[in-house]
Amino acid sequence: MTESLKPGATIGILGGGQLGRMLSCAASRLGFKTHIFDPAPNCPASHVAHKQTLADYDDSEAIIDFAKSCDVVTYEFENIPVVTAKTAKIHAPVFPGIKCLEVAQDRLVEKTFIQDAGIPVAEFHAVEHEFELKRTLKTMDLPVVLKTRRMGYDGKGQVIIRDGSEAKDAFKQIGEAPAIVESFVPFAREVSVVAARNPNGDITSYPLIENEHRNHILYRSISPAENDNGRAREIAMTLLDALDYVGVLAVEFFELPDGTLYVNEIAPRVHNSGHWTQDAGCVDQFELHIRAIAGWPLGSTAPKHKIEMRNLLGQEIEAWEALANEPGLFLHFYGKDAARPGRKMGHINRIVG
Amino acid sequence: MTESLKPGATIGILGGGQLGRMLSCAASRLGFKTHIFDPAPNCPASHVAHKQTLADYDDSEAIIDFAKSCDVVTYEFENIPVVTAKTAKIHAPVFPGIKCLEVAQDRLVEKTFIQDAGIPVAEFHAVEHEFELKRTLKTMDLPVVLKTRRMGYDGKGQVIIRDGSEAKDAFKQIGEAPAIVESFVPFAREVSVVAARNPNGDITSYPLIENEHRNHILYRSISPAENDNGRAREIAMTLLDALDYVGVLAVEFFELPDGTLYVNEIAPRVHNSGHWTQDAGCVDQFELHIRAIAGWPLGSTAPKHKIEMRNLLGQEIEAWEALANEPGLFLHFYGKDAARPGRKMGHINRIVG
Repeated sequence: MTESLKPGATIGILGGGQLGRMLSCAASRLGFKTHIFDPAPNCPASHVAHKQTLADYDDSEAIIDFAKSCDVVTYEFENIPVVTAKTAKIHAPVFPGIKCLEVAQDRLVEKTFIQDAGIPVAEFHAVEHEFELKRTLKTMDLPVVLKTRRMGYDGKGQVIIRDGSEAKDAFKQIGEAPAIVESFVPFAREVSVVAARNPNGDITSYPLIENEHRNHILYRSISPAENDNGRAREIAMTLLDALDYVGVLAVEFFELPDGTLYVNEIAPRVHNSGHWTQDAGCVDQFELHIRAIAGWPLGSTAPKHKIEMRNLLGQEIEAWEALANEPGLFLHFYGKDAARPGRKMGHINRIVG
Repeated sequence: MTESLKPGATIGILGGGQLGRMLSCAASRLGFKTHIFDPAPNCPASHVAHKQTLADYDDSEAIIDFAKSCDVVTYEFENIPVVTAKTAKIHAPVFPGIKCLEVAQDRLVEKTFIQDAGIPVAEFHAVEHEFELKRTLKTMDLPVVLKTRRMGYDGKGQVIIRDGSEAKDAFKQIGEAPAIVESFVPFAREVSVVAARNPNGDITSYPLIENEHRNHILYRSISPAENDNGRAREIAMTLLDALDYVGVLAVEFFELPDGTLYVNEIAPRVHNSGHWTQDAGCVDQFELHIRAIAGWPLGSTAPKHKIEMRNLLGQEIEAWEALANEPGLFLHFYGKDAARPGRKMGHINRIVG
């Protein structure tokens, strides 16, 4: 039984993007203050935070001061250096734990961990050199996907190989970095689950989410999704326990036409495919994460409505006035200055059932 | 046709209590930053603001610097000095306008204004001296309510007079300040309306709200209320136009057993009796106010659910863990340090239909 954080406590968030921003507002609803650590001035979370430390993630002194000012520390993205989280942990609890960060940062460790937990993933092999890639390709059915082990997101650091002759170019394209090569899963749809666990081991999950990606970036999510046999949520719960997890965890799946699920990846944080929960009439994923890391009861994750979430990428945000004019749309803009192509600038939710 | 504020603009808020706090989170959803002006360090809104100016309301220099940094200025309570708002207005638009502030700050001006707009209010008379009070009492049916013209809220600055002999004591109790004496309205229930108008003259309103006060402090609100003939909303709309209003306006009514409505008071701001809108599945009153003062389309104020709101006063906040454990409760805690008796520490919303 862990002591719960009282309202008034300070929650530290490593990373001040839109996820930190929405975590911060959710924390305020529970009476908490937030302290954001981010090297970027005017980052989205700084608009709704009590305090920001403006420093690099490798600035140990700044991290120590930051952690000392917090009652608990969390992170909004999984690519913060593990050493940063470890330094913070000397002075404040860090949730989700260091292990989750280590697992999520390296696709090889991640896939191995998931497989070891008895959960299906696509066939995968580690490759560190071009010759190794070529040798591995001979043992696999094509196409396959070559992915860097580290720092991949939104399709960055991955390339499809349809023919053995493409190996050399493909390996160059991913920067000749340590990688995994994975069977291409001929999925019928992509689904995800957002689930949470608190330090007492209480577990909860939202219903299944169906996702549509365009250009490797999430375009749309709908939940509760059709044809949910509960298996995806079971898998997410298994992973929460296997990781002795505290906080919100997102699990992305490929679903085959016959319903078989392969875990594609896990994200140890609130997740874009969970943004629909903000307008679903239950505790949203941001509040759920804060409740979990604060040791609170998790609350209700049963939505009152079926919601469709759409991301607003790049210049799509310029339609803000038309969007504001459309009845029944819930607006969530991130306050980012530069609407670079493909950059997540906001999202909209709509009740669809 | 006024130019709308673009996402990224800065909204200044005079006052950093719980209303400023919830306005700030709502502003962030639309991509705005907020700058809070409040003399209290660690005020509730400072936990979710981009910036706070820590200065007194009569610090003209601070007000000028503050207003210069903002694209629009609003206020979260109607008792900020009019001169403060006027100073700010030299450098940025101030919504709702100065006139609304002047009307709402003085019960005599307020009641006269409402009456002049053709809207029923209880019989009232201005009194400045004890002898005037005594003389007036002779012309009225008792009981009556003696109220200071200025700075009254949550029942402060008012006293019931049941017998002419109580006049002297009553006048002492309200500090011998300029006052009005009002007929006591034998109401069957108290109701309110939260409505809004933007600079283009677009108008909208939430459904009727039924309120229960205890010890002169709002205890509970339910909306949509039963037995709504639409008259209260019509009155609110009339007042919005009469005041050439921009922003959210709350109108409180006494309803007689036969359905007759008397306006009790108006609040030129978001209002405690509108907190239920946060979990009603439509644009909430905080976002509605931001939309209105930013010149945006007002969005939908039609709730998907019937909601009951309960205030958490003083030590009631100490039950936070039990409240967090109750399924279906939406928590809104204000992050205030000292739980003084009667102090508004938070509220809870619950879907009841």
